[in-house]
Amino acid sequence: MSLNSFGHLFRVTTWGESHGPAIGATVDGVPPGVPIDEAAIQRWLDRRKPGQNKYTTQRREADEVRILSGVFEGETTGTPVQLMIENTDQRSKDYGDIAQKFRPGHADITYFQKYGRRDYRGGGRSSARETASRVAAGGLARAALARLAPGLSIQGAMVQMGPHGIDPDRYDPAQIDANPFWCPDSQAAEHWAEYLDDLRKSGESVGAVIEVVARGVPVGLGAPVYGKLDTDLAAAMMSINAVKGVEIGEGMAAAALTGSANADEIFMGPEGPHYASNHAGGILGGISTGQDVVVRFAVKPTSSILTTRRTITVDGEETEIVTKGRHDPCVGIRAVPVGEAMMACVLLDHLLLHRGQVGDEGGVIG
Amino acid sequence: MSLNSFGHLFRVTTWGESHGPAIGATVDGVPPGVPIDEAAIQRWLDRRKPGQNKYTTQRREADEVRILSGVFEGETTGTPVQLMIENTDQRSKDYGDIAQKFRPGHADITYFQKYGRRDYRGGGRSSARETASRVAAGGLARAALARLAPGLSIQGAMVQMGPHGIDPDRYDPAQIDANPFWCPDSQAAEHWAEYLDDLRKSGESVGAVIEVVARGVPVGLGAPVYGKLDTDLAAAMMSINAVKGVEIGEGMAAAALTGSANADEIFMGPEGPHYASNHAGGILGGISTGQDVVVRFAVKPTSSILTTRRTITVDGEETEIVTKGRHDPCVGIRAVPVGEAMMACVLLDHLLLHRGQVGDEGGVIG
Amino acid sequence: MSLNSFGHLFRVTTWGESHGPAIGATVDGVPPGVPIDEAAIQRWLDRRKPGQNKYTTQRREADEVRILSGVFEGETTGTPVQLMIENTDQRSKDYGDIAQKFRPGHADITYFQKYGRRDYRGGGRSSARETASRVAAGGLARAALARLAPGLSIQGAMVQMGPHGIDPDRYDPAQIDANPFWCPDSQAAEHWAEYLDDLRKSGESVGAVIEVVARGVPVGLGAPVYGKLDTDLAAAMMSINAVKGVEIGEGMAAAALTGSANADEIFMGPEGPHYASNHAGGILGGISTGQDVVVRFAVKPTSSILTTRRTITVDGEETEIVTKGRHDPCVGIRAVPVGEAMMACVLLDHLLLHRGQVGDEGGVIG
Amino acid sequence: MSLNSFGHLFRVTTWGESHGPAIGATVDGVPPGVPIDEAAIQRWLDRRKPGQNKYTTQRREADEVRILSGVFEGETTGTPVQLMIENTDQRSKDYGDIAQKFRPGHADITYFQKYGRRDYRGGGRSSARETASRVAAGGLARAALARLAPGLSIQGAMVQMGPHGIDPDRYDPAQIDANPFWCPDSQAAEHWAEYLDDLRKSGESVGAVIEVVARGVPVGLGAPVYGKLDTDLAAAMMSINAVKGVEIGEGMAAAALTGSANADEIFMGPEGPHYASNHAGGILGGISTGQDVVVRFAVKPTSSILTTRRTITVDGEETEIVTKGRHDPCVGIRAVPVGEAMMACVLLDHLLLHRGQVGDEGGVIG
Repeated sequence: MSLNSFGHLFRVTTWGESHGPAIGATVDGVPPGVPIDEAAIQRWLDRRKPGQNKYTTQRREADEVRILSGVFEGETTGTPVQLMIENTDQRSKDYGDIAQKFRPGHADITYFQKYGRRDYRGGGRSSARETASRVAAGGLARAALARLAPGLSIQGAMVQMGPHGIDPDRYDPAQIDANPFWCPDSQAAEHWAEYLDDLRKSGESVGAVIEVVARGVPVGLGAPVYGKLDTDLAAAMMSINAVKGVEIGEGMAAAALTGSANADEIFMGPEGPHYASNHAGGILGGISTGQDVVVRFAVKPTSSILTTRRTITVDGEETEIVTKGRHDPCVGIRAVPVGEAMMACVLLDHLLLHRGQVGDEGGVIG
Repeated sequence: MSLNSFGHLFRVTTWGESHGPAIGATVDGVPPGVPIDEAAIQRWLDRRKPGQNKYTTQRREADEVRILSGVFEGETTGTPVQLMIENTDQRSKDYGDIAQKFRPGHADITYFQKYGRRDYRGGGRSSARETASRVAAGGLARAALARLAPGLSIQGAMVQMGPHGIDPDRYDPAQIDANPFWCPDSQAAEHWAEYLDDLRKSGESVGAVIEVVARGVPVGLGAPVYGKLDTDLAAAMMSINAVKGVEIGEGMAAAALTGSANADEIFMGPEGPHYASNHAGGILGGISTGQDVVVRFAVKPTSSILTTRRTITVDGEETEIVTKGRHDPCVGIRAVPVGEAMMACVLLDHLLLHRGQVGDEGGVIG
Repeated sequence: MSLNSFGHLFRVTTWGESHGPAIGATVDGVPPGVPIDEAAIQRWLDRRKPGQNKYTTQRREADEVRILSGVFEGETTGTPVQLMIENTDQRSKDYGDIAQKFRPGHADITYFQKYGRRDYRGGGRSSARETASRVAAGGLARAALARLAPGLSIQGAMVQMGPHGIDPDRYDPAQIDANPFWCPDSQAAEHWAEYLDDLRKSGESVGAVIEVVARGVPVGLGAPVYGKLDTDLAAAMMSINAVKGVEIGEGMAAAALTGSANADEIFMGPEGPHYASNHAGGILGGISTGQDVVVRFAVKPTSSILTTRRTITVDGEETEIVTKGRHDPCVGIRAVPVGEAMMACVLLDHLLLHRGQVGDEGGVIG
Repeated sequence: MSLNSFGHLFRVTTWGESHGPAIGATVDGVPPGVPIDEAAIQRWLDRRKPGQNKYTTQRREADEVRILSGVFEGETTGTPVQLMIENTDQRSKDYGDIAQKFRPGHADITYFQKYGRRDYRGGGRSSARETASRVAAGGLARAALARLAPGLSIQGAMVQMGPHGIDPDRYDPAQIDANPFWCPDSQAAEHWAEYLDDLRKSGESVGAVIEVVARGVPVGLGAPVYGKLDTDLAAAMMSINAVKGVEIGEGMAAAALTGSANADEIFMGPEGPHYASNHAGGILGGISTGQDVVVRFAVKPTSSILTTRRTITVDGEETEIVTKGRHDPCVGIRAVPVGEAMMACVLLDHLLLHRGQVGDEGGVIG
């Protein structure tokens, strides 16, 4: 019921504000015997780290993770793992404007109205900085998955920047790590580079669509009818800052299909059932089918922009605001490793849940 | 952690299978002093009830709800409310085909693979019949909201059937109850009637998009960063059978917007802040702004169709299947009251949570 | 977070009032494949059923349980099991006195002060009748344990009635079912019969101490540091009506021991470690040792007595009260099957939890 | 469901091992607007700190708490509060003996058997050091209570050391802080000093009984029938290291009372109902009555003693063990501030729960 936690058995609680001393993730329910060290988690944090190229915020954070508990002699012990990242580059000298004015499209106003106060420095708790904690927890989840579900892999990609989508026919997983946008279509990546450069110069921002695919997911994960795999994935992705929509498989487009078009026909192979298509995105009735689990989510454009917008002050005076500072023209870029981390956490959680509730009662076909 | 429950303080657990003796909802955390009786809940169940026109399944269920606990002298007492609906028209004589074969696009196969067995009669637990329990719980939530947030109203509508969307300029709330599709656009409704008639005759099914709007939502509901209002709405809607996508406000379209276009500018009125637009769908940083909360979700087409599909048997033999029986050509129609119910439950839950965690600490602007 | 639920993975929610239409238990997280039918649960309910001898309330309830969901072809399916018991002998004609006056030592006054209303008929939700739901859920837990931990057995006994304890040297498990008090000491049972007869005639009531022992508990159940096996057992027992104290192993007497006396020395046998004594009650650091798990709890005397007591009315007038009706002179008798049921639920829950979080990572000695 | 968490709305997760880099508490659900700083929490930690006199372990820890999140400009913001205490005096040079041998009466063996590994340095996660995190969280809870329930106070005391209880007639709250044992009876304190000195010199340890009393508790806290105030107090206290029994009010002695003796008669005063006695310990039906809430718990003697005990090694060899090092002869002394902290956390949690579920629906008498 903890409001800053997610997961059932593998339970992650993130804490910390953008400009406080540190942020982190308290991870409970970690299975014992998972080989892990700081370097194994750092690897994923480095993917998300800001300031690595001109397309993300120029804030420079070392983002060095420390493991404070739950690991002994290079293995998890079954006790909570505390992952802490100190904030080093806060530059908290001057917050005058956002301390007094609410940015349109930002959580500034709702935090104030809800709690009667807010840590306005860098967005406080509502900052995208919180997602570093998720990525750290995701790194731990990946290590556990490597042990418990060896064939499983997770890869995120940006499939749309602003109005510009990729060409599905040019989708090449090998391209994803080869450009600053995690774009699987090399031509689109080139086009996006120009587009984002222009946006950045004009002080604007833009949204994006991220797709995360998990391959090698065991059959049977997900617990109907509310602890479904797709329910938990939808919640996990929607909980990321700035996300406004989540899709599984066909997603919103499923509405336009007929029953015969949408049905993924089933055949039998030497290793069990296989499917002629994957409209379902790897999930039927909330339970994994063994096909690729495919999730997409839309990230809205950052509200911290150089364009003047009308707003009000804490005292209710109408005014204008321009947000200077080191912001991401397309915060969706950094959302790719975050989406991957959430996928890892949810899959591990359901793997443990399934093992606990069902054990080896599952049905074998053929 | 209960897998068949949702909600934090207002906690609903549904139970029951399509062709068992009964289905129902165990509702815990109901605030005391809410005036309620069976008729007040029946009213909402009747909206969802199948067999009311030729566009929904011809299964005829009385769907009469009984309150077994938690109500005394016409008011809730603060103890759990048990809402039970007996199954009366199961027609369980013949299930030979779906007992042995898996319907493509249906939870048949994953339930079997997960649990090693399944109640195949009418889809068992994965049947859309489960949603009657949700509607009953939603009726209770609405009664509590009427007392705790008097100005709040919730209305769902179907805004797309198959590939055919409504014309937003013809959106008229008064039309929603005037046609069998909960369609706010009377011209679209006429067109849909023909379209669905053809589909039904050809044994096909089709998907839909549902939009649920809550008006008069208090400012400050939602608990960052994982118990967000939008997180919980996404989970609630995605947990409904056959839903493949969920959107808040602009939804997936937010990806294509620039920061300046997406920012809902803020102005000050006599009753507090107001906004020039509502791209956010009434939620910023996971917290309600006081604007309309707008959620959309896509329902895929029913997989029980008369069209022949390739599939396999429980024993792993390849075969074909045609699903005869009384199925919905557009199960999205019945999803409208279900979406409303989920909205009611989530809003009430967050109202109680906010009252508990924050009390009257909220900030007043101006 | 549900207030009427307990358990982590095996999660029981009880519902219902003493004089409403029915009571029951909604049980989620039941492992699939457990053979079960109504008779298997009825067996345990019959042990608790009132009106079986002159020492328990003369209210006559059939206490017939119905399984409304989650079971198909004689086995659990992994979906929620709804267990319902209809109330048949409510005699709700006359509640004038307890409707207006609060019984000293009873929950009457606190329910009213908390909720502003209460179902006063027969004590409503605070009636010992609620424990029938627990016993039903416990019957289901026992069936699951029989499958998952075949050598495990659970047996409760009354070891003290009022001031009269048993003689530990005369403890004979075979005697427990041979007298109406579940007393393992046949001489004490005879003495208690006379003692309770006198009490009953004088309109008085008395407390008791119950001991529940689980034998054959697997090593390693329990999840430090808050989801400990002893933490959950303490909560489970303290949640039973009228319980005021809970002990594990030595219990309160552990305070008087020295470290050398309290340490259960460890030896090695062909089947693993064994212990020279069991001061720990089978639990160290919140985790089961494989020895007998021993829990005791004290039940206070019923507050519904024929002796006149000073009290106040709902309107705040001072007055006197005498509670006529069919009450238990020693409600502790019926608490024996309830304590067993709670033990069964907690052990099953931790078995599932352990399987989920740890799997086969456990350490083998020698 | 988190295994290292407790609380419903005010939710505390502790983390950390005795000899890791740090320990701490992640506290979620903290109400906003609570004035707090590190000094306000340090005050309570200093009460528990070891090494302050010859009766507690000579390990010297600064036990300095740092607030890493959730506080801004001296007030809580409603976001998670991270409380971290660095471990400074670990002396981890030599653990040969306890690394290979299991201490009888200690969690060494069960952690190993459950998880297949354990951080044996200083007891790892099962060390009493974990309770410092609880005291820190309790300090935060006290600050919140000071704001939300101004008249409420909490005071713990040791009422029995080994076999030596206090004389209830000499109970003087003013004495509690005047001796190293938190003993309310000055004569008993003198006697205990000699007794413990002898024990310490002989390398022995002894148990204790702690009593925690909360005064000024609002009426109506507690949520039947499983989220009861006494259920949660029992769980909270039993979760503390080495606790083997918990009592509310009369506790185990309630078994020996008759109904008329146990009933706390009710009278009416100008400020509402009052009671002639408090056998109930301030809780009826799981809900607070407004009287003092009285909880007692027994702490077993430390298993780390200088007396030789028989045990086995990790490899299953029979052997003997003597635990040298800096251990507490009566670890119950340090349990007093821990018990107070747990009481504070549970009361705050139920205050928030009540505010959330019931609001101002409560009933007023007279």
